[in-house]
Amino acid sequence: MTDYDALMAFTRTTEALARVSGRLDWDQETMMPRGAVAQRGEECAAMAEVLHTRQTDPRVTDWLAALEGTALDDTATAQLRHIRRTHDRARKVPGALAAKLAATTSQAQGIWADARQAEDVAAFLPVLGEVIALRREEAAAIAQGASPYDALLEDYEPGTSAEELTALFGALRPALAELRAAVRAADAPPPLSGTFDEAAQLQLSQRLAEVFGYDTAHGRIDTAVHPFSSGSGLDVRITTRTQADDPFNCFYSTIHEVGHAAYEQNIDRRYLLTPLGGGVSMGVHESQSRIYENQIGRSRAFTGWLYGQMRDAFGDFGIADEESFYRTVNRVADGCIRTEADELQYNLHVLIRFDLEQALISGDLAVSDLEAAWNDRFAADFGYHVDKPSNGVLQDVHWSVGLFGYFPTYTLGNVYAGCLNAAMRADLPDLDDALAQGDTSPATAWLGARVQTHGGLYEPRDLITRACGKAPSEAPLLAYLHEKFSAIYGL
Amino acid sequence: MTDYDALMAFTRTTEALARVSGRLDWDQETMMPRGAVAQRGEECAAMAEVLHTRQTDPRVTDWLAALEGTALDDTATAQLRHIRRTHDRARKVPGALAAKLAATTSQAQGIWADARQAEDVAAFLPVLGEVIALRREEAAAIAQGASPYDALLEDYEPGTSAEELTALFGALRPALAELRAAVRAADAPPPLSGTFDEAAQLQLSQRLAEVFGYDTAHGRIDTAVHPFSSGSGLDVRITTRTQADDPFNCFYSTIHEVGHAAYEQNIDRRYLLTPLGGGVSMGVHESQSRIYENQIGRSRAFTGWLYGQMRDAFGDFGIADEESFYRTVNRVADGCIRTEADELQYNLHVLIRFDLEQALISGDLAVSDLEAAWNDRFAADFGYHVDKPSNGVLQDVHWSVGLFGYFPTYTLGNVYAGCLNAAMRADLPDLDDALAQGDTSPATAWLGARVQTHGGLYEPRDLITRACGKAPSEAPLLAYLHEKFSAIYGL
Repeated sequence: MTDYDALMAFTRTTEALARVSGRLDWDQETMMPRGAVAQRGEECAAMAEVLHTRQTDPRVTDWLAALEGTALDDTATAQLRHIRRTHDRARKVPGALAAKLAATTSQAQGIWADARQAEDVAAFLPVLGEVIALRREEAAAIAQGASPYDALLEDYEPGTSAEELTALFGALRPALAELRAAVRAADAPPPLSGTFDEAAQLQLSQRLAEVFGYDTAHGRIDTAVHPFSSGSGLDVRITTRTQADDPFNCFYSTIHEVGHAAYEQNIDRRYLLTPLGGGVSMGVHESQSRIYENQIGRSRAFTGWLYGQMRDAFGDFGIADEESFYRTVNRVADGCIRTEADELQYNLHVLIRFDLEQALISGDLAVSDLEAAWNDRFAADFGYHVDKPSNGVLQDVHWSVGLFGYFPTYTLGNVYAGCLNAAMRADLPDLDDALAQGDTSPATAWLGARVQTHGGLYEPRDLITRACGKAPSEAPLLAYLHEKFSAIYGL
Repeated sequence: MTDYDALMAFTRTTEALARVSGRLDWDQETMMPRGAVAQRGEECAAMAEVLHTRQTDPRVTDWLAALEGTALDDTATAQLRHIRRTHDRARKVPGALAAKLAATTSQAQGIWADARQAEDVAAFLPVLGEVIALRREEAAAIAQGASPYDALLEDYEPGTSAEELTALFGALRPALAELRAAVRAADAPPPLSGTFDEAAQLQLSQRLAEVFGYDTAHGRIDTAVHPFSSGSGLDVRITTRTQADDPFNCFYSTIHEVGHAAYEQNIDRRYLLTPLGGGVSMGVHESQSRIYENQIGRSRAFTGWLYGQMRDAFGDFGIADEESFYRTVNRVADGCIRTEADELQYNLHVLIRFDLEQALISGDLAVSDLEAAWNDRFAADFGYHVDKPSNGVLQDVHWSVGLFGYFPTYTLGNVYAGCLNAAMRADLPDLDDALAQGDTSPATAWLGARVQTHGGLYEPRDLITRACGKAPSEAPLLAYLHEKFSAIYGL
């Protein structure tokens, strides 16, 4: 057996174990009995220990060293890039620090949930300070003199930097704020009203999953408090949720998660259980979920078809025609919560977090000043005030579990979705004719071939550049939003 | 940290990983998408490799050696007994043989399923021959000169031997055959007829699980083709099934699995995630499932209560009173299938397999003669003939997956259930008053304190002896069956 074959055989087992670990998380959110929490914690820690031991295995060091400088094909080169990145990173973080981080974030998540419930920011700040200190220590160990925040970013979006993102987002923010202000000054379409049978919502959401190409022979749909997608390869599961007065939440959560899941399901099967067999970054992942949800799912053409489906499922629900339905689906409303934001305002929520978390990691912002900084920034971007911490600085779980560097990938994903949409529309001039019939296959096939099938073969930015024929920028997203919301709001 | 503490910390992680591996099996039978089979095979193999590596870890050898001869309390002594047994056994079986066995049995299970479907014994025999040869090789490696079949038995029922079981079962078989013949010569009560709403069956089965003390905060109930119980400690899940024309199948499958699950749930929590934290043997496990199902669940007192529940759930279903209902629940009917057998005939099915599998392992019976041997023995014990292989030698999955030495634990469990029932009834003279009210708690509390709480602390036979105040024998089971069926059949 060659060194490469030996390394890949070892890695395949590690990948299989990572799938098992991921399925434990799925089980925890969907199936686990409520009394099993303590035991589950030990099970997850045991799996983490096994994975860490394998990622840092000295044999991997030796195989990688032996392969250094060897001529390999593109696939093998990409496999080694992933293996080396994971191995180097895991070896740089002392085991004691990793264990401390796991224990502290596990504890912090509970404290955050209680603090949010009690609207008590002060109760959360001490443990948040600990989490930040530990992540800073971890980032310093990885960065070895380079930027600590970039070291954290690398976990979610390899190959990018805060500098690059800052430039990209710097062009986005004023344009979004301006468009938002114009839209909010115009007359808004009425919101959806009434109640919608939840079993019928689930039935239609199942239909939507199929329409967007979700393969139920290699997945399943359950309900969970917070919808998510889980797994890769031959077993990719999604969840959704229902709320009697808000069927759009169910439908668009499902479409969003199908975007994530379809990415994982459509990766070239030759990469199964290898480092190339998963989505390449959070940003690219989000580009798929968002283009499914927004540029396709909330398009005039597709909502025309969805209107008919909803009439079939729920009868007359007080909206007279497709055009009104399209306007209601895309209604822009005030709100403090990121996850409930429309596609126009969503990125403004994210950019607040991106700027604040960089300041927290660098030490420019003390946790004691975080709430004021959040509220000031929110008022500046949205023009009104956060009413309570659960609608402000306590709304997201991310920081409590140590996810610093994750938020910007949401907006990067939207930027990528904008780029992909422009290129796809140019390639598929008749796409709307198909969408109006509820046929998304030209779009999903295009994304499958241009993005999804490649798995981890290319670096994220390179992948989007190849798919679109040019380097990504914020311009297509802004042009799309301008055109769409100007038309809806008669600007 | 002492050697003992170090060994126990290492073992705790191994136990947690074993729980994860077990939950993968649960997922496969209940939740897994049908297209995930190939990936799941690799996931299970990866977990098996991790567990085997830990079980044979040289540090365990060193810790065990260092602790040899050290004075320890009973709990620690019992922990070491389990760890040593697992470690010694795992080290005796060459890795290549274990891998070959896993691959062959995985393949054999598919071939068996196809052969059963096609009623084609010949198609199954070659791979069965391979499985037997590999298990014989494994048994020889473990036994090191002692009896190979006993080495296999040890996996499921530590501390017993074929000789001991042969003596026990030798007393059972003629007595069961004689009682069976007398019952079959008498008039049988009518069978249940009609159809029973399957959702209502599941609802009543949920009620039955609670009545028998199943703790749903630490478990959950799903449906599966073949009902089973899975897990231990804080997360013990069961499955059941429904069939419109046979609600008893649903109810008694549920009660049976609750017997297994309650055993795991009621083990002393101090043993959580240690080798003492699981049921001590298959025989003791089966004693719990069978006493819940039969001696309690099919008793005159409890079926009286169940009759009322069924009337509430299904209205008039054609049985006039409790007494008739009791007779119908306990109806003895012809049949070739072990899993569908009533409590009188069940053990005769098992004893056929016990005798034949010993002959297969010793080489006294060639696989080419197996079908004839099975059919002859069946005719001798039951007085009529097997009509087709799927009702005969191809009915059970066990041998295809290499489970030689497992079958006798079913009957041993019934013998133990007979012993426990006699002791419990002597201790609880008013038990039937409670059962007639649907209150099983005096019985489940007795079993919890005498058997279940101890987990793996005592060896199986010792545990039953302590619980009953005397050594186990077949006599209480036979006396119970004689009394019960003589009364029902007016012998």
